[in-house]
Parts: sequence; C-alpha cells; structure tokens
Amino acid sequence: MRPTITLLTDFGTADGYVAEIKGVLASTAPDAVVVDLSHDIPPQDIETARLAVARYWRRFPAGTVHVVVVDPGVGSARAALAVSSEGRFLVGPDNGVLSPSLLAGGSRTVSLRVPALAAPTFHGRDVFAPAAASLVGGMSIDTLGAACLDPVIRRTPEARRGDNGSVIGEVIAIDRFGNAISNLIAPRGGSVEISGRVLPIMRTYADTPVGQLVALVGSSGFVEVAQRDGSAARALVIARGTPVVLRPPRA
Amino acid sequence: MRPTITLLTDFGTADGYVAEIKGVLASTAPDAVVVDLSHDIPPQDIETARLAVARYWRRFPAGTVHVVVVDPGVGSARAALAVSSEGRFLVGPDNGVLSPSLLAGGSRTVSLRVPALAAPTFHGRDVFAPAAASLVGGMSIDTLGAACLDPVIRRTPEARRGDNGSVIGEVIAIDRFGNAISNLIAPRGGSVEISGRVLPIMRTYADTPVGQLVALVGSSGFVEVAQRDGSAARALVIARGTPVVLRPPRA
Amino acid sequence: MRPTITLLTDFGTADGYVAEIKGVLASTAPDAVVVDLSHDIPPQDIETARLAVARYWRRFPAGTVHVVVVDPGVGSARAALAVSSEGRFLVGPDNGVLSPSLLAGGSRTVSLRVPALAAPTFHGRDVFAPAAASLVGGMSIDTLGAACLDPVIRRTPEARRGDNGSVIGEVIAIDRFGNAISNLIAPRGGSVEISGRVLPIMRTYADTPVGQLVALVGSSGFVEVAQRDGSAARALVIARGTPVVLRPPRA
Repeated sequence: MRPTITLLTDFGTADGYVAEIKGVLASTAPDAVVVDLSHDIPPQDIETARLAVARYWRRFPAGTVHVVVVDPGVGSARAALAVSSEGRFLVGPDNGVLSPSLLAGGSRTVSLRVPALAAPTFHGRDVFAPAAASLVGGMSIDTLGAACLDPVIRRTPEARRGDNGSVIGEVIAIDRFGNAISNLIAPRGGSVEISGRVLPIMRTYADTPVGQLVALVGSSGFVEVAQRDGSAARALVIARGTPVVLRPPRA
Repeated sequence: MRPTITLLTDFGTADGYVAEIKGVLASTAPDAVVVDLSHDIPPQDIETARLAVARYWRRFPAGTVHVVVVDPGVGSARAALAVSSEGRFLVGPDNGVLSPSLLAGGSRTVSLRVPALAAPTFHGRDVFAPAAASLVGGMSIDTLGAACLDPVIRRTPEARRGDNGSVIGEVIAIDRFGNAISNLIAPRGGSVEISGRVLPIMRTYADTPVGQLVALVGSSGFVEVAQRDGSAARALVIARGTPVVLRPPRA
Repeated sequence: MRPTITLLTDFGTADGYVAEIKGVLASTAPDAVVVDLSHDIPPQDIETARLAVARYWRRFPAGTVHVVVVDPGVGSARAALAVSSEGRFLVGPDNGVLSPSLLAGGSRTVSLRVPALAAPTFHGRDVFAPAAASLVGGMSIDTLGAACLDPVIRRTPEARRGDNGSVIGEVIAIDRFGNAISNLIAPRGGSVEISGRVLPIMRTYADTPVGQLVALVGSSGFVEVAQRDGSAARALVIARGTPVVLRPPRA
C-alpha cells in the first residue's frame, strides 16, 4: 500500500502556493499518494481547521501523514510541529490546529528544525512538506526535532448545566449548508432552543417540511439546527457563539 | 491498473465532510485511486449534478465507481442506489442524479442496505463510500441490496416544434463563464433567439469581437450562448428556463 | 515511479468540464497520477495562470506533464502548444500562459495538430488531454506537431530606476489573503512606498502588530505588502498595476 499524505490549508489554489507544495512532495515523496482535504478553509481560520481535523484525522489508516497549514503566525517564534498519535502523523504550526491529535493518549510531539533557507512566510512549502516527505519515507519523528512538551491546545468550548435539567451550549460552526453545529450532545433526545425558537430533536433533515427548521443529532454526534432545503444560518440570525439550550425530554 | 472511485458532491471541502469520506475510502479501499470531480455543486442542486454526471460518467474506463452525493433527502425514505451500467458503477441517492446511467440500456439497479449505525444525515460517509469500496473490491452489486425497479428518473426538458421550422427550447444550465447552455441541437446551423436578440450560430467564442454575444454548438452537442471574454448570463437577463428559439438556416 | 500529469484551469468544477478531462486521462493514461493544481483561476485570467505556472512548473520532477487550460481564444487561429523544457513537458494554448517554460534555455515547442473532431470550444478535453496522455506514454514531442518558433511570450513587467537609488515597480498580483505582490526584489532590505504609506521591509507577517501593514520579501523572492491577520488589498486601495516604490536602506 502506498503511504498517504493529506493536505488541509487556507491557501485557495489560484495563487500557486498549493501547487508549489505538491511539487515539493512529488519530488521528495514520489511514492506517496497526496490527498487534498481542503484548500478552502477561510483565511487564517484556525478553529474551522481544528474542527475539520477532529473529523478526519483518525479515519485515515495508520501511517497516514496529515499536513495542516493554517498559519497566521508563520515565521514568528511559534513552533512548527510534528505529532505522532495513534499511528498517524500530523504536521503543522503550533497554534492549536493539531489539538485533536495532541489530546489523544500517548501522542508524541516534536518541534521541527526550521532550515536556514526556509522562506519565513511559507513553511508549508519549506518546512511542513519536507517533514511530511521524511515521515512517509520512514524517518523517525525523533530525528526531525526536539520533543515539544507544551504544544498549544485548543478545545471545543464545554457546555454547562442550566436550570431544570437543561444544558447550555453554543454554536461552534456553521457549515456550507447553513447548518448550525453546537457543542451539545443529546443521547436521550429532547428539544433545543436557539434564537427564541424551540425545536424538538428529530432524526434527519427531511423529517420536517421544506422551509422549516429542524434540530437533530449530526454526523459527528453533536446537536445541530438546520432548515430543510435552506440555510438555518440565514433563517435565524446566528453565528459561532450563539447560545443553544438543550432541554431534556419530558419524563 | 488500479480501480478508480470518483467523487461528486455539494459538500464544499472546508467542513471536513469530504475529508471523512476520503478517510473511509483510504481505510476500506486502499488500492483505489480516488478522483475529485467536484465538491462545489451548489448546495442541494440535483439538476447541476445530473448534468455533470451526464458529461462524465461514460468517459471513465469500465470498472470505475462514480459516487454522487447531492442528497437533500438523506435519511428519509428515499432509497440509496447502486447502478451497474455499461461497465461502470454509480452510487448515490435515488433522486435523479444518477439518471444518465439509469437511462442507458441494460443498466441494473439495487437499493443499498443502510447499516443500522449509519448517521441519518451522512449517507455519503456511512452508506455510499462503503458501497463504493465494496464494488471496487470486486463484490457483486447484487450482494449490496435488492433490485430497485423504479428509480427516480430526471430528464433534460425536451425542445418542441415552433412555427416556420423553428424549435423552441430553453436554457438548462449556466456555466462558470456565464455561458447559457440550451437543450437545442442544431445539426445544420441557423440562428437562435434569446431575450430578444438574434444570433447566428458560429463555430467558437473567438468568432465574434470582444464583448459581443455569440451562439455556437458547445462541447456536449447543445447550442449555447456566450459573450466573448464576458458573461452572457450577466449581459442578458437569463436563467435556467429562459426560452431559446432555434431558427433553421435560410434555404 | 508513476508519471504525473498536473492540471491548472479556469473551469471551476461544478459544470463537469474538468470531470470530462479527467475521464479522458483515466481512459488514455491509466498509469499516470493526475494532480489538481487549480481549477479556480479567475475565468480567462491568463496572467494569474502564468504567475502560478512560474511558481510550480520546475518544482515537479522531470517527466511531469503540466496541462494549463486558460484559453479565451479556444478554437480560433491561436496555436495549441506542447513544450519540452528542463525535462518537464507543458501543454496549453499559445497565449502566454506557458511563458515561464518557454523562457528557460533549451526549450522546444511544437504546435499540436488539432483533430478534425475536436470540439472548437473545448481543446482541454479534445486536444490538450490527449497530448498529455501521449507525452506521459513516452511519445516524442516531435510526433505531436511541427516546431513552433514564435510562441506568444508574456513577461512580468520590469521595475525601473527612480530618483535617489529608488526602484519603481508595481503590484503584479493580489493573493487570497489580500497580500499585494510586486515585481520588486530587495536583496538589501530598505522600505517600500505604496498608496502613500511607507513601510520598512520586515521578515514575516507576524513582525508587525495585528491589523498593521507590513512589507516583506515573499516566498517567490518578490517584495509584498500584507496586513497582519487582515487584507492589505482591502486596507489600501490597490490592484494589479498600483505603483510600489522601493527605497534603499540608509547607508
């Protein structure tokens, strides 16, 4: 099986930066399969990148190298990291984007040596891609730099208990469909309140008529609010951080 | 030759949904080549997806598995399909996106079994990707579900005869360049009327001066209207459904 | 090592044109690895494509075939080219997009024969993809057409000398982050003036506080102007062609 390198960036593709990274990988890791995960992360949106990484990093087989370049601090004192976690490797800036793998038990993290000739504005090409090529080539992570013991960790905000058995959470992401994803889990169903609307938790989008709002447990296990064949984010005036309250089912 | 799985979705890439699908495929179909066709289908735009499928499904070699996930009815009673048609396989929801393959002679269609643990909002990850992995792995389509005898079929609207040998069609798509593609074929040339403009059918975009409108037979055989180095859709006020009339060449 | 074909186009992906090209390649060059570089070049923006090609064409290994389809003159008298340069091959229209490879010493260029059945509006599918398949299949470039001795060349505009040791350049590109990239090189540092602002040349984006403007030498060696965690293009009123003046460091 050919080893896999995945790419997640906020570079877009039109400017040729991703093309340069792919050229470096084609030249230095010719046997790897390079998989685009996204280049459309909103510019410098570390949180969107972190949530995407949480979704996908474990779904690839052991040996995969995930490269994540959303890096407003490129060239500054922030470290460049390589992580070994549950058999996968992750490479990217020390700004929290790699947190899902750092929080897994038994992960190991090194601070990558930055070559003297690396462009201080483009570590994706000159630091992270070469590190990924080294890792898929079988080099030990320990040869790439010294242990990093205190990497930056970002976490999904935690929901908190409210009155009468309710749980108070918030919107943590709004996806392309305008679905608002919260930090609430609802193992027993119930209903959610958002922007003054109360919505019982249903099974899927089509469980409500076209144009109506619906709450449900999304594919990553969190409660989300959607509009059937529309955009909940437009229908309600909501954004990251908007409160969402979960009320338990009536006994 | 390694087997190919293609992906066409309306997920965008920034939210990590496509990344999850690719992780499932990397884990369950490690020998397959996964080819992105588009993740930029407008959200829930079944018709744009159907027209794209019509363009590409036969151009890939026999054995290719095409996964199409534009699926507003996910998790509802709509079936999940696998189709075998002219040596290719197609996997996707029963909402008409797979029609081009269903209309080919000799196609076979099954209604996929949906695993109990599949997320009702994400069949792309939990139903269609696993089915694609099974098919490239050589499993018979008949093992994936029971025959489906009445899949949903969507068709390009048919043009109709008008006066004096004319044919009355309509705009069926507007592409990224603002070219308006119709459902008219014009084997003998002639001219087209759209939004009060009459345009002789030329050979290519550059057959008219910059900024001028031009009609021609496009690369899929249908008459289209373009603006040289501009957008016909902006220059004319047109949309899907706008009438287009073909007038035969003068005798 | 499997041979690589890269794709750079302005087609977007939703209309299925790129999918058709990939189908042709999957059928005629089944052993090649097809790498997406971009399909998001702004429609018909030859200059953005040329600058991207300059960035990546040499970074891929010898033997790579780069297909570039940004082609407003498709089907007209403009030639269709294949270029052999420094061990790489490039295929695309004769409108200047391939200039970076044409300007390299020792390049060879042929004018591709256009098959009689090629759609005059889609040489990407019917001329350039088949030529790429022939080249990765090992056919000699000379078998694909006659030598082209005067291909169209586009060049980055040259900066000129100003007063007091200054150099007068201009913005040649604005990237996804709103960074304004100039045609100035600044081997000894100094400061730049743009839109009435004077900015000392720093090392990287993070060398200035959030929200402030910064000038630096970008990853392709040219001076660029950025806004920390923002968009210089929005903060200043600038576009391609806006003057940028480099002043040497004080002695």
